[in-house]
Amino acid sequence: MGATSKWVYDFEEGSAAMKTLLGGKGAGLAEMTRIGLPVPPGFTISTEACHAYQAGNALPPGLWDQALEALRKLERKLGQRFGDAVSPLLVSVRSGAAVSMPGMMDTVLNLGLNEQTVKGLAQHAANERFAYDSYRRFLMMFADIVLGIKKERFEEILTHARGKEKVDREIDLSPAGLQGVCRQIKDLIQAETRQPFPEDPYKQLELAVIAVFKSWNNPRAATYRKQYKISESLGTAVNVQAMVYGNMGEDSASGVAFTRNPSSGDKHWMGEFLPNSQGEDVVAGIRTPHPIDQLERTIPAAFREFKRTCELLEKHYRDMQDIEFTIQKGKLYMLQTRTGKRTAQAALKIAVDMENEGLITKAEAVTRIQPQDLEQLLHKQFDPNAKVQVVAKGLNASPGAASGQVVFDADDAESWRDQGKNVILVRIETNPEDIHGFFAAQGILTARGGMSSHAAVVARGMGKPCVSGCEEMKVDYAKKQFRVGAHVVREGDTITIDGSTGRVVLGAVPMIEPEPTDEFRQLLTWADEYSRLYVRANADTPKNAKRARDFGAVGIGLCRTERMFNDVDRLPVVRQMILAKTTEEREKVLEKLMPMQKEDFRGIFSAMDEFPVTIRLIDPPLHEFLPMKDELLVDVTRMKALGQTGPELDEKERFLEKVMELDEQNPMLGLRGCRLSLMYPEIIRMQSRAIMEAACELTKEGVRVLPEIMVPLVGHPNELREVRKVVEAECQAVMGEHGIKVDYKVGTMMEIPRACLTADMVAEHADFFSFGTNDLTQTTFGYSRDDAEARFFQYYHEKGILKYNPFEILDRDGVGALVKMAVEKGRKTKPKLKIGICGEHGGEPSSIEFFHLAGLDYVSCSPFRVPIARLAAAHAALKEKGATIVSATV
Amino acid sequence: MGATSKWVYDFEEGSAAMKTLLGGKGAGLAEMTRIGLPVPPGFTISTEACHAYQAGNALPPGLWDQALEALRKLERKLGQRFGDAVSPLLVSVRSGAAVSMPGMMDTVLNLGLNEQTVKGLAQHAANERFAYDSYRRFLMMFADIVLGIKKERFEEILTHARGKEKVDREIDLSPAGLQGVCRQIKDLIQAETRQPFPEDPYKQLELAVIAVFKSWNNPRAATYRKQYKISESLGTAVNVQAMVYGNMGEDSASGVAFTRNPSSGDKHWMGEFLPNSQGEDVVAGIRTPHPIDQLERTIPAAFREFKRTCELLEKHYRDMQDIEFTIQKGKLYMLQTRTGKRTAQAALKIAVDMENEGLITKAEAVTRIQPQDLEQLLHKQFDPNAKVQVVAKGLNASPGAASGQVVFDADDAESWRDQGKNVILVRIETNPEDIHGFFAAQGILTARGGMSSHAAVVARGMGKPCVSGCEEMKVDYAKKQFRVGAHVVREGDTITIDGSTGRVVLGAVPMIEPEPTDEFRQLLTWADEYSRLYVRANADTPKNAKRARDFGAVGIGLCRTERMFNDVDRLPVVRQMILAKTTEEREKVLEKLMPMQKEDFRGIFSAMDEFPVTIRLIDPPLHEFLPMKDELLVDVTRMKALGQTGPELDEKERFLEKVMELDEQNPMLGLRGCRLSLMYPEIIRMQSRAIMEAACELTKEGVRVLPEIMVPLVGHPNELREVRKVVEAECQAVMGEHGIKVDYKVGTMMEIPRACLTADMVAEHADFFSFGTNDLTQTTFGYSRDDAEARFFQYYHEKGILKYNPFEILDRDGVGALVKMAVEKGRKTKPKLKIGICGEHGGEPSSIEFFHLAGLDYVSCSPFRVPIARLAAAHAALKEKGATIVSATV
Repeated sequence: MGATSKWVYDFEEGSAAMKTLLGGKGAGLAEMTRIGLPVPPGFTISTEACHAYQAGNALPPGLWDQALEALRKLERKLGQRFGDAVSPLLVSVRSGAAVSMPGMMDTVLNLGLNEQTVKGLAQHAANERFAYDSYRRFLMMFADIVLGIKKERFEEILTHARGKEKVDREIDLSPAGLQGVCRQIKDLIQAETRQPFPEDPYKQLELAVIAVFKSWNNPRAATYRKQYKISESLGTAVNVQAMVYGNMGEDSASGVAFTRNPSSGDKHWMGEFLPNSQGEDVVAGIRTPHPIDQLERTIPAAFREFKRTCELLEKHYRDMQDIEFTIQKGKLYMLQTRTGKRTAQAALKIAVDMENEGLITKAEAVTRIQPQDLEQLLHKQFDPNAKVQVVAKGLNASPGAASGQVVFDADDAESWRDQGKNVILVRIETNPEDIHGFFAAQGILTARGGMSSHAAVVARGMGKPCVSGCEEMKVDYAKKQFRVGAHVVREGDTITIDGSTGRVVLGAVPMIEPEPTDEFRQLLTWADEYSRLYVRANADTPKNAKRARDFGAVGIGLCRTERMFNDVDRLPVVRQMILAKTTEEREKVLEKLMPMQKEDFRGIFSAMDEFPVTIRLIDPPLHEFLPMKDELLVDVTRMKALGQTGPELDEKERFLEKVMELDEQNPMLGLRGCRLSLMYPEIIRMQSRAIMEAACELTKEGVRVLPEIMVPLVGHPNELREVRKVVEAECQAVMGEHGIKVDYKVGTMMEIPRACLTADMVAEHADFFSFGTNDLTQTTFGYSRDDAEARFFQYYHEKGILKYNPFEILDRDGVGALVKMAVEKGRKTKPKLKIGICGEHGGEPSSIEFFHLAGLDYVSCSPFRVPIARLAAAHAALKEKGATIVSATV
Repeated sequence: MGATSKWVYDFEEGSAAMKTLLGGKGAGLAEMTRIGLPVPPGFTISTEACHAYQAGNALPPGLWDQALEALRKLERKLGQRFGDAVSPLLVSVRSGAAVSMPGMMDTVLNLGLNEQTVKGLAQHAANERFAYDSYRRFLMMFADIVLGIKKERFEEILTHARGKEKVDREIDLSPAGLQGVCRQIKDLIQAETRQPFPEDPYKQLELAVIAVFKSWNNPRAATYRKQYKISESLGTAVNVQAMVYGNMGEDSASGVAFTRNPSSGDKHWMGEFLPNSQGEDVVAGIRTPHPIDQLERTIPAAFREFKRTCELLEKHYRDMQDIEFTIQKGKLYMLQTRTGKRTAQAALKIAVDMENEGLITKAEAVTRIQPQDLEQLLHKQFDPNAKVQVVAKGLNASPGAASGQVVFDADDAESWRDQGKNVILVRIETNPEDIHGFFAAQGILTARGGMSSHAAVVARGMGKPCVSGCEEMKVDYAKKQFRVGAHVVREGDTITIDGSTGRVVLGAVPMIEPEPTDEFRQLLTWADEYSRLYVRANADTPKNAKRARDFGAVGIGLCRTERMFNDVDRLPVVRQMILAKTTEEREKVLEKLMPMQKEDFRGIFSAMDEFPVTIRLIDPPLHEFLPMKDELLVDVTRMKALGQTGPELDEKERFLEKVMELDEQNPMLGLRGCRLSLMYPEIIRMQSRAIMEAACELTKEGVRVLPEIMVPLVGHPNELREVRKVVEAECQAVMGEHGIKVDYKVGTMMEIPRACLTADMVAEHADFFSFGTNDLTQTTFGYSRDDAEARFFQYYHEKGILKYNPFEILDRDGVGALVKMAVEKGRKTKPKLKIGICGEHGGEPSSIEFFHLAGLDYVSCSPFRVPIARLAAAHAALKEKGATIVSATV
């Protein structure tokens, strides 16, 4: 940029498209000017000038001349002169970056006033009170914002003056009183700055412009930018605009409004105004503003103009607007327009309404909603107005909020629930034995365990709120209480947990109920029209399968067969199976399990009629179905030391012996998944039989069943080859017995790096791939999720080592590289290989975008995230075609 | 192959180069014929004919005509006719695949005999006894090998005949007696096969040829091929050769010999002969053969010819030969030559001698030794002649054999050792507390734990024999005994373990002592001339560093700092450090550890003067330095139940509390490696200081120190970046304090898939990479090594799911793909990046070949494997240039 650079733009020269150069406010003013709305004239000093200022620590050459020239144009337009003692031109000076940002210098009104010009203003307006009120405002704002003297310093002056005249508001002071106030303010300024207040309007303007530029780098703004990842290099523009006055009497006012209701989304403006006031009064809260509709009565012409302007702005911007205006002696002037922030619910309604009104297209409506907006609408939440006392924070393991009385074990949860009580189940950690407690409780709170701990995974699957890994909480089962800091919470005490944020609160908190609206359904139907990925759900029960289908899932991507093992009535049978000493004995017990599993599959297949259901063969290590080792060790040791005998000890010893035999150093990497299937083929023979008998029976009953049998934890193609042999043999046998042909597939989880690295070979034995990104992230990073989240993730996040939790957002560089490699290699072997993902990333928007780009066919997530995934899938497709996802929700 | 295919080759037509077509035996006979040695004429039916036979289950068209034509040529050459009643031509029929293989049909001698021709033979040789002895032999061999009637079935006939004439050997029977035997044999054959014995010599020949072809697929041969990975498609040839007779009297003989001593490698033939015998007699053990040198006295002309032939064969084949010969009436005939099998020690001596003799080049000498041959020479072994009673088998965790009295804890090991006893330490599993027991014991035997269990890794590092994971062994600490099957072994009983094979033997076993010879050193010096990879050692103590240097290591590739923590006098300090409640408290304890670590580094740096030493910062999870959780739980529970109190309980409770706090579900993937360094930077600050103070001090003393500080378990570039900051700051500080500049590097282990996938980014912060292929294999496969080896590897191996253990031999498809990717990406960022490997694969030949091909700079392995790695590195380079590695060791 040389001396010829253009730094200054009249409002007539700009437009909405020039937001980067002129900032949001400047572009809005220019656009409104361009479309003929009543905007007081002015000009914008560009963001490029801000960069130049930052670089040289001085206004760049040429800027001031251009600003003066623009000021001259203003003077000519309005027939007033800046600094004129008779009819002085006054201006406002306001900052405006491309992204709105708190902490920046905001607004100086009435700039240009001094001892001379204030008199001219008084004479010209024939209103001395107005003139000195304006002067007082200007002095205070200038002192605050430009000279750095906090407003509170002037409070004493104002209090004293009001007391003397016995009035409540400055505006009611006598002109003489106001004059006195102005004098005292100037004296204070001189005392503070050891310089007289700058009387020269040009000096005032220069100082104000520099103050705006400097404020770009003030600590609060810098912190905000860092937090919200706003580029340092954006810079701010400065808007200099001729003043209009809302404080010229009762036919004058200032106000703010939304063109639609930002809470509900209703198609009716909503706003407030204050007669005889200037801008900041409305938001300052000193006087109570009036609802905008009262304007119809008090200044009807301005109200008509306001309505017309709202309509025009919405048509023009094709979105709900947040505006500022001033009415000067009955005439409306627009000072700002921008996209209005709104609640998630409002965002949905506005998007759908605007499509219906023909303002926006379906695709635009879809891009107007963020996936997290939907999440808000699907779970109970704390009432945002409620005052809450957060006593601890854990992991946001399963979203939604719940209140209830604290109980410390699953049996209590059940019996209290049966007495009609709402309970929160609090445990150090949970295991399959607690499962009935999950059903009974409103929510689950654990001291240990990460985002994939038993508690977290089960709660998410059930859609129950859960806060896990709340390490500050010290649970004492014996005393039936937990301690957190100074608080002791006893059994029966009421607490509230917020699984969306991890907060734990004492007492009950008022909630907002979720309510999927017609707009909710409408928008998702539109979203599906744009998606390339389709969305399945992870569901293990007929109930969840139905729920998933209600939410729009077009199949089950992950049905965990072992979840069924954890049912209260089945666990003893499963344990018998594990304790079996011979294959024959085990097969006998499996015969008992088979009809139970078959019933589950019948339910799920029926619920998913015509949609595919992916069933994963047994995955977890067997010890997970037994009591925990530490507890058994302690119990057995104690009972023996005390010389106790009897059947209880016998059983515990039997369990302990088996648990010790099954004990592994790193069970995550041990005997589980297909390794278990290979060692105990009788288990998957039973599961294959249960699947196929259900499928054959239902096929006869007219249900269309599409089972996809999925082999977990494959790392070597031979593992899949061998498991497949067992499964195929059993499936063929069952179909033979029933004389029915079922359209089934056998495929594999991709959750081990080696499977991805050799995906071309794995694909030879697979009808489909489904990425298990939880395990794949664990092995790719070498993190045990539970351990990592409890031990060092917090630290890693603070130190910036990990920018995000890779178990929540897919790690594209590492895990993503394996996913891409696997897709490419798998499709090299089988070009039409069906590929999906059923890890938790399947419900996370940024990860879904990655899966879309990587060419997957579908994502699968928990039923409650299906709507979110559907929207994210649509966004991914639309973004690929160049669309921007805009968020205007608060 | 049509009707024109050539199936039959005269010996004159073939050569050594035609081994695939003619089989090893056929090619050897052809080659000897070609170079003018006295070989009875004959022809070979090719391996292609074998394929054709297998494909069509019949001799292919044209074969029989070609065979008859070749037979005609034989007749013309020898002036005898096949089936002639006056002077019959007899032949031997022998199988011969390209690879020698037990279980195949072997030899039929004297084929062509029948009731007519035997008389002709008797008349022509003027020796009736010879003729009927030959007939008897033929009938028995034919019956056994072609008709499938086991030799033993004839035993009664022979016993009866010998008894009747009161002689010990068949050869001493009267002609009439022999005739009677032949008749009885033929009767038995008829009774068994329900067909008369085939009198027609052509039928005999046809049946014999078909029997050879069929034997290719007999179960024993098929099993052998599978086990030794010999291709099914090789097939066998059939050699038809004119008979010469070693059973024509005392001037006739048959014999076998080696051209050099196959045990010691001494340059002197070694062999045996039996006068008046046919081939199989020498090896059958019925008569005791004479040492070959006696031939000089008994048949001197044949002996002279034998010596000349040995020399000629060695010059021709340029290797030690294993030959078969027959002497017929004073004249030597050669029946077979092949490369002679030899012991490892002989292989070494022969290779080096032959280079010295100018027979072979250095490169050839190097390719003549297999890496495993060297291993044999480096460890004590069971005397191969000893009879051993193997009572159990575990994992071959650390090679070598050891005998000693059983003790069950480390303290006992120490006190018994102090009483001058040799002990074997037997534990269920070991932990750092047992370390003094390792030093005291001759060998270690554990019931649990895989190839990378504590016991295995520590034992290998010390070069002590170890058998781990011997699951059949049930150890009872309380009774101080273990049970294995029916055997009970008590404290003090002597056992022997073989860590090279995993065998556990009751009692002491005679051993062979290892003895690296001059040839050993010579050959490795030659090997180094061809290697591109250089070899470092993994060593944690000055003693091991010295040993490594003696074995030819040119640096330390892995010095595990935490190993030093396990010393008896340091462990209490390390535990204090872990129990510390604040950073300050921990720093205080670390100050005590620093001088100890510094001393170790001084020792190692001094031993490695001028060579680089790679020091890995603390890696294992902290709980590994504390007593085991299960034991603490049991002890504390019991003591409390019994109402005990006191300092012992207090300490155990303190440990237990910490152990529970540190407890992780999957410690392999938990808080360890650089994660630990980041959470407790004070530990690595201490370690960096110890390294650099040692380096600075020694530099002043004139030692050239090249420390390479290595960060373990990096998965994300930011982890390395942050650790590096801490290390660099401390190193710079120490160098500043000493006023010394040390040439140090900071690099990273590559042992997490993600590090490999993002190696370009990791390289930005690394001066070097060193692959940790143990952990990389664990994470790439998703296997916890200990768990996998104990639980399912055996099964995987049996089922052919894994062809080999990927923790022993690098998995090229999966782990190798990551290694290659990391090398490529790392060098994209830093073209000269130094890259090595310090996992256990660094000492495994096939893996070393891979690392050579992947472009690594060095491999590092345990000191005892350095010679093996040096040889393997040379082999890799030579193979890349087209050399073949030949193994002739038994």
